[in-house]
Amino acid sequence: MIGSVDTIPSSTIASEPVTLALDIEGGDQGPAEVLAGAIAAASPRLRVLAVGTSQVVEPLLAEAGSAATRFIELLPCASVVTFHDEPARAIRNRPDSSIAVGARAVVEGRAQGFVSAGNTGAMLAAGLLVVRRLKGVKRPAIVTVLPGSGGPVVLADSGANADCRPEHLAEFAVMGAVFARVGLDIDRPRVGLLNIGEEPGKGSELARGAHSLLAQGTQALDFDFVGNVEGRDVLSNRCDVIVTDGFTGNVALKLLEGTAHTLFSRIKQAAASNARSKLGGLLLRPALRGLRSALDPEEYGGAYLLGVRGLLVICHGNSSRRAIANALRFGENAVRHGLVSQLQADIEQSLATGPDVATMS
Amino acid sequence: MIGSVDTIPSSTIASEPVTLALDIEGGDQGPAEVLAGAIAAASPRLRVLAVGTSQVVEPLLAEAGSAATRFIELLPCASVVTFHDEPARAIRNRPDSSIAVGARAVVEGRAQGFVSAGNTGAMLAAGLLVVRRLKGVKRPAIVTVLPGSGGPVVLADSGANADCRPEHLAEFAVMGAVFARVGLDIDRPRVGLLNIGEEPGKGSELARGAHSLLAQGTQALDFDFVGNVEGRDVLSNRCDVIVTDGFTGNVALKLLEGTAHTLFSRIKQAAASNARSKLGGLLLRPALRGLRSALDPEEYGGAYLLGVRGLLVICHGNSSRRAIANALRFGENAVRHGLVSQLQADIEQSLATGPDVATMS
Repeated sequence: MIGSVDTIPSSTIASEPVTLALDIEGGDQGPAEVLAGAIAAASPRLRVLAVGTSQVVEPLLAEAGSAATRFIELLPCASVVTFHDEPARAIRNRPDSSIAVGARAVVEGRAQGFVSAGNTGAMLAAGLLVVRRLKGVKRPAIVTVLPGSGGPVVLADSGANADCRPEHLAEFAVMGAVFARVGLDIDRPRVGLLNIGEEPGKGSELARGAHSLLAQGTQALDFDFVGNVEGRDVLSNRCDVIVTDGFTGNVALKLLEGTAHTLFSRIKQAAASNARSKLGGLLLRPALRGLRSALDPEEYGGAYLLGVRGLLVICHGNSSRRAIANALRFGENAVRHGLVSQLQADIEQSLATGPDVATMS
Repeated sequence: MIGSVDTIPSSTIASEPVTLALDIEGGDQGPAEVLAGAIAAASPRLRVLAVGTSQVVEPLLAEAGSAATRFIELLPCASVVTFHDEPARAIRNRPDSSIAVGARAVVEGRAQGFVSAGNTGAMLAAGLLVVRRLKGVKRPAIVTVLPGSGGPVVLADSGANADCRPEHLAEFAVMGAVFARVGLDIDRPRVGLLNIGEEPGKGSELARGAHSLLAQGTQALDFDFVGNVEGRDVLSNRCDVIVTDGFTGNVALKLLEGTAHTLFSRIKQAAASNARSKLGGLLLRPALRGLRSALDPEEYGGAYLLGVRGLLVICHGNSSRRAIANALRFGENAVRHGLVSQLQADIEQSLATGPDVATMS
């Protein structure tokens, strides 16, 4: 599993240091917080290229001191892509902006991956315009890992493609399955289609079309299509990979975050309601803390943009130093796994033999 | 608020008994469980027409005894619509089937509403084909009430329309707002559009189109359009009514159920992990029980099909006697509020002055 060094087959662990670019000025919590994440994660085996403007990043590096930052190197950019920028335009017109510079570091081989908590749309645009799509991939997808009751669940697409056609969903199934195999060590992932009923004829035109594509074409692929799954199955581990369009996937992802947040604050309130509950809450707190962290999206460090020729990790805009450090460590493990090259090989093969994706457009 | 008798303005409480039809043979838990719900709710002020086949319902009524069933009367049907039936065909071809008979009781004035935990699609078809749409309504919608942190939140559409156009979402906004006003006593409901970003230009083609319709046309209406809301806002009471297509709405609704279920089972597990946690769990249990019931969809008794000429309440297939009883009580209150007639009046007025809904098709 990515993030759990024990389970990485030793054959895939390269012994050389991994270098990742990190967007220091992306994210809501400011550059000092992002840099703190880099300092926590950087090591002789994980070097960080700190992408940012000299005037912001140099003083921060100086303040942290040379001991803390000895595995971190400034990669200067001229400007920062903000949440107000129109993503594609920012990437096209400002090649010296933070996200364009970070993505180019991957293309040029100076870094093996790029991590940013900045503008998600700009990361997507950088993936399409700078890193570029893998051969045969029509629609790169954002893949996140959800905390299912019985283990991690892969969600594809989590927000890259708001409008999709059935063949795009079939492509997400292929990419999600490869991610589950390579990243989560699941031999033959079970792939489900998120829908509003279990029967094949249920749902929107899009879901019905995707169902019939996936039902006819997965024999030759290394995953099993288990059919439609519903919202209540998302965390139940009925399948390892949940496929949906980026609109539904993004709503679902944020709803999960919001629901977990709401429930935990209400548990806190309930535990403060009287003396008996207060004592109970105090005694239960350590066990609930474990649960809360198991459900925390920061545990998984970020989302992966799959289907492009490099490793792009998109962190939540509100990422803390802990989330940034996790994303860097997960990125390092993904590089050591050879995630992108395996994805490339498997996706190309899957697309060639898969659910008629290659012949549609 | 529907379901809370205290808050009903006395002027809207009619003193006559209310009669509701109830589909005894709909639902996963079997007719005895549904009838138990009817027995719990029926009273001199709430009479129940028990729709079912004589051979199933008569013995159950006899077994329960005449005292328990004195406010319940059999309304016989010849067959039952099951979850395997194609909904529209079942309603069209089998006028003596349970859901068709219940819906016809509403049209004929024998009942003031119809409650069923059976096939949702068949209830929708009965709404369209038997009860028929309100004047000016293109797409009746299923409206549910979600347990927001600060009070109830209306979700429209929760699953009636898997494929929508922008003007349908504008219509759901109008209907959801009327429901919030009449049913939840919210004077001027705040309506949000479920989307994957807050800015107006974000989201799918459908969401962008609905945003521009709603942004231009709500001045004359009795609600405020607050713009886009995201998945994490669903339970945060940023708005009183959340508008979305029936596909996204249904996924969201079931995801909420699934997440709450998963979290509570994991809290249970955490509370069983060691002696300290066990004691904590024991002490906290009464407070958490209150929270659990506040989050329980059964509290709200069901979903309302809005936009048709009668009150149709759709219960969860897995409804217990408690859920059935709540749905009947909520239905009674809706009748006493004159929900449908107020909806009819308000929807017609809203559609005439609203966000260009009437001129589109």
